[in-house]
Amino acid sequence: MLVEFGGTKVLCAASVQDSVPRWRRGSGQGWITAEYAMLPRATNTRNDRESVRGKIGGRTHEISRLIGRSLRACVDYKTLGENSIVIDCDVLQADGGTRTAAITGAYVALVDAVAWMRKRKMCGGDPLVDSVAAVSVGVVGSTALLDLCYTEDVAAETDMNVVMTGSGAFVEVQGTAEGKPFDRAALDELLDLGAAGCAELTRLQREALA
Amino acid sequence: MLVEFGGTKVLCAASVQDSVPRWRRGSGQGWITAEYAMLPRATNTRNDRESVRGKIGGRTHEISRLIGRSLRACVDYKTLGENSIVIDCDVLQADGGTRTAAITGAYVALVDAVAWMRKRKMCGGDPLVDSVAAVSVGVVGSTALLDLCYTEDVAAETDMNVVMTGSGAFVEVQGTAEGKPFDRAALDELLDLGAAGCAELTRLQREALA
Amino acid sequence: MLVEFGGTKVLCAASVQDSVPRWRRGSGQGWITAEYAMLPRATNTRNDRESVRGKIGGRTHEISRLIGRSLRACVDYKTLGENSIVIDCDVLQADGGTRTAAITGAYVALVDAVAWMRKRKMCGGDPLVDSVAAVSVGVVGSTALLDLCYTEDVAAETDMNVVMTGSGAFVEVQGTAEGKPFDRAALDELLDLGAAGCAELTRLQREALA
Amino acid sequence: MLVEFGGTKVLCAASVQDSVPRWRRGSGQGWITAEYAMLPRATNTRNDRESVRGKIGGRTHEISRLIGRSLRACVDYKTLGENSIVIDCDVLQADGGTRTAAITGAYVALVDAVAWMRKRKMCGGDPLVDSVAAVSVGVVGSTALLDLCYTEDVAAETDMNVVMTGSGAFVEVQGTAEGKPFDRAALDELLDLGAAGCAELTRLQREALA
Amino acid sequence: MLVEFGGTKVLCAASVQDSVPRWRRGSGQGWITAEYAMLPRATNTRNDRESVRGKIGGRTHEISRLIGRSLRACVDYKTLGENSIVIDCDVLQADGGTRTAAITGAYVALVDAVAWMRKRKMCGGDPLVDSVAAVSVGVVGSTALLDLCYTEDVAAETDMNVVMTGSGAFVEVQGTAEGKPFDRAALDELLDLGAAGCAELTRLQREALA
Amino acid sequence: MLVEFGGTKVLCAASVQDSVPRWRRGSGQGWITAEYAMLPRATNTRNDRESVRGKIGGRTHEISRLIGRSLRACVDYKTLGENSIVIDCDVLQADGGTRTAAITGAYVALVDAVAWMRKRKMCGGDPLVDSVAAVSVGVVGSTALLDLCYTEDVAAETDMNVVMTGSGAFVEVQGTAEGKPFDRAALDELLDLGAAGCAELTRLQREALA
Repeated sequence: MLVEFGGTKVLCAASVQDSVPRWRRGSGQGWITAEYAMLPRATNTRNDRESVRGKIGGRTHEISRLIGRSLRACVDYKTLGENSIVIDCDVLQADGGTRTAAITGAYVALVDAVAWMRKRKMCGGDPLVDSVAAVSVGVVGSTALLDLCYTEDVAAETDMNVVMTGSGAFVEVQGTAEGKPFDRAALDELLDLGAAGCAELTRLQREALA
Repeated sequence: MLVEFGGTKVLCAASVQDSVPRWRRGSGQGWITAEYAMLPRATNTRNDRESVRGKIGGRTHEISRLIGRSLRACVDYKTLGENSIVIDCDVLQADGGTRTAAITGAYVALVDAVAWMRKRKMCGGDPLVDSVAAVSVGVVGSTALLDLCYTEDVAAETDMNVVMTGSGAFVEVQGTAEGKPFDRAALDELLDLGAAGCAELTRLQREALA
Repeated sequence: MLVEFGGTKVLCAASVQDSVPRWRRGSGQGWITAEYAMLPRATNTRNDRESVRGKIGGRTHEISRLIGRSLRACVDYKTLGENSIVIDCDVLQADGGTRTAAITGAYVALVDAVAWMRKRKMCGGDPLVDSVAAVSVGVVGSTALLDLCYTEDVAAETDMNVVMTGSGAFVEVQGTAEGKPFDRAALDELLDLGAAGCAELTRLQREALA
Repeated sequence: MLVEFGGTKVLCAASVQDSVPRWRRGSGQGWITAEYAMLPRATNTRNDRESVRGKIGGRTHEISRLIGRSLRACVDYKTLGENSIVIDCDVLQADGGTRTAAITGAYVALVDAVAWMRKRKMCGGDPLVDSVAAVSVGVVGSTALLDLCYTEDVAAETDMNVVMTGSGAFVEVQGTAEGKPFDRAALDELLDLGAAGCAELTRLQREALA
Repeated sequence: MLVEFGGTKVLCAASVQDSVPRWRRGSGQGWITAEYAMLPRATNTRNDRESVRGKIGGRTHEISRLIGRSLRACVDYKTLGENSIVIDCDVLQADGGTRTAAITGAYVALVDAVAWMRKRKMCGGDPLVDSVAAVSVGVVGSTALLDLCYTEDVAAETDMNVVMTGSGAFVEVQGTAEGKPFDRAALDELLDLGAAGCAELTRLQREALA
Repeated sequence: MLVEFGGTKVLCAASVQDSVPRWRRGSGQGWITAEYAMLPRATNTRNDRESVRGKIGGRTHEISRLIGRSLRACVDYKTLGENSIVIDCDVLQADGGTRTAAITGAYVALVDAVAWMRKRKMCGGDPLVDSVAAVSVGVVGSTALLDLCYTEDVAAETDMNVVMTGSGAFVEVQGTAEGKPFDRAALDELLDLGAAGCAELTRLQREALA
């Protein structure tokens, strides 16, 4: 499925395997993992391909891990059984917030994959115990903004990614001072804004899946 | 730009750089290169990412080189000046003939890039001396077929890729016996079919660019 | 210098170079970067060396980037001039909180490096505009704990790293639900605890440097 | 065995393994693969070793795949049984046409390997259903030439590799316009010349094996 | 354990595994291997990490192999059973003679590991048939010196590493002319000095283990 | 040039470059380096290519370094000027003693390269101040043997490589106890035998070059 958040377009695809990584075998439990990548021309100036450079960069690693962790928060491994789901998130066009768009879209792809598995009786019941959505928030100038585009992202003094469940709990909070360090009041304002954004995205996910 | 050939979808993007590879510096001549890749879920079963494996496979290398060679056949390096154009061809969905779709789409992206350069006076005149299109042909059973889809491709006894200029000359001919070796008559029939296919694609490229 | 946080021992060393990365040249500004690594027997069971595997894992990348970002928050690049400081953080023994111990120790190594540079008149004034310290906090059972050791870390439902300046502002906040997602109240409690922990570490850094 | 085509010298060695690649196991069928490489001083100016660069270049990959495909065209996998033959083609000295010399020599090494296997009763009958030879042809100036040496190869406007069975059918045809694109008449002339060349090589292979 | 030889500090740690490399399985015999590495700031000027460069350098490989070979000289594989011991030697600070310090310390770590295994009845009896120690000797000016520090090492015309058992036999002798080639008399003098040095180290090892 | 020592065949080729490695620039001095490799079928059972594995093994690294060091012992860098010579030693067939055969042959290739340079006035005078030859010696059973073939090498209890100048001084001595450690008397006997072997090889080198 293709997620679009403003100018950001991410292709999210889920693949099901009836096996789990070696360290998980025999546990009766499943696993969810994710891989994030950007096409070389997703951005305005071309980036070298990581396959050509022969190694994956730190940023790609970091985001892939974040997406995987976020999705795992809404899954019950036992119900999933010894199956794996790999979610590929490929950014076709980037205009800020690619990691949060990827998480939000990946959840929808995950729902599809789980439906496909249940039709084939691969898992006992519904392994999805909640939904997951994510949004980026930031302080530009002295204003807190939701879902920053690229130019806002570059200008942001503080940049925060908020990942929440559909039931309103936090899965991950990552706030970084890009410019000057931020105080507790700014942090609180960003958390409020992020929570509201995630609630709205949860609503949109439900519509898309209905 | 996105090229679609039946179920095959390839995203082609050209990037211009005002420099050339080291071995070309000081020659007053430009260079064209291409990189081909497939998203992990472009095919029906997921392929591992080459960036994760840490190296580019032989097939990817081979196709990237073919696309680059094909495009260079219609370019006058001197008029291009000491500039490079990199064409990225990323297969979003694969259903046979990805390399020929990539060449045909890459030419259109190349025309756009050249127009962009000429607006900025980066090259003296028009470096494009012809157009380029490509098609796959094959023998399935005992019938010669144009533009094979995946199931035909797997069944093909002979598989041929034909790259031709808009003026009707051959740039590259690659015929491979997948099953039993083929005779001269079959080869001739495939070349005829390929030539007709390329002529039709040339017409479509002109329409798309008009 | 060797930092010890309970059973965690990290060797932090700063290296000064009178040059900056290519993308920074001619800017008149400096750069700070960090590399984190763990000895194979820092943990209870041996981990393969990343040099032997031929690539750096995602976790290592992520932590190296976090340390670098954290240190850069207390540096004025212009006063630093076109010089770089690389901070190596090598974990000799790991018992939870290695990344926060590394940041706290790296700051002390950075102060030493800056003093060395100022003696040699390599920078105009003091490029350090604040200090930086970090601590891990988490919820184990239903109790919020400061500076988790390995067994607590494994048991934690929520794990948070808090990086703060000596003046009490946030540089980075990373909270992750390892088990069940957390609510705003838990998040607030962890932030309070983290802030208190960073304040105490700031005091200890001052003592160590006095 | 050492093949010499003019100034080109290629060492071809076949190695037999009583196993097949993972994807082939349990099929009752064998596999043939090839690896091509050039010594650093096979050419007039030294090339860096691919082992030192840490990766195999596109050209090497492409030629290894071509040799493997060509040899597989004359083998019956079922009669071969679940055994593999790896053919190593190492170019000691290069003066044009190394890939076609490698294919022609590799076939002879393959015959030896098969004889060795049959002596040990490793395969049911003779898995070789035909022979394979290859030659390079090209247009230099306006003359079609057989088996181009290096200086001719560089000057060639069109370069074609023709791989044929001993019974006169095509296994692979690869024609590339190095300079200006070629027309059907030139292509036909090159195919005729290539077919004649392969027939002569087939005769020489028979003599060598007699 | 941490070995110190003058300014050289090497952390040596042994890890026991109840398995052996694939080529050794089913032999009833064990295996000993070693990995040597230097922290980036072990030396006075920073060296790039081999994990970051993505490959292990020749010097590291060479020393790891030497340490492994040296330790294996004092082990009876049958008594060890199908178990492996990996010895990690990480140089925290380097001031000449790091490889000989690593061997000498690694033996002590090996004794500890064997004791640990015997307590758990992992091996039949004592697999250690002797002890091993190593020392560097060299000719600086025209004087033979024992255990060269870094500045002596750089100035040495001949550099020799001598590895001996506690019973006084040679395990490895490596002498290299760094400057002008050396004659037999110099070689004999260095061997005498090295033998005396190893005897002294053997005494110190016994004390440390007592 | 091709060196043959019994069943061992090594192709040695020297390549001259009119530049030196970066760390040597501006010194007015030259550099000699060597690369050793084995073809996959040089041995009786096939070894995987290091280019395919994507990294150079420890043994290859170690031998390449030994050959380079040995050759540098007979060269005056100043007379060589800021030029480099790379010696490639590729083992076509291995039957013991490949590294010593490589050194002995590499010296002859080096003499040729230097003659070629002097004809082109690339160096002031003769940069070769001596000759270099190498031989392997070993103890099999209780007998010291010169130039061990593969079956002797495997059976050897002690294996020693001796590299000497034509004037009879030692460049490198590497003795390793493969089986039981050796005493000083055995070491002395091996050194005598090695010295006699090197003297004979020096005579043969002179004949080959005459």
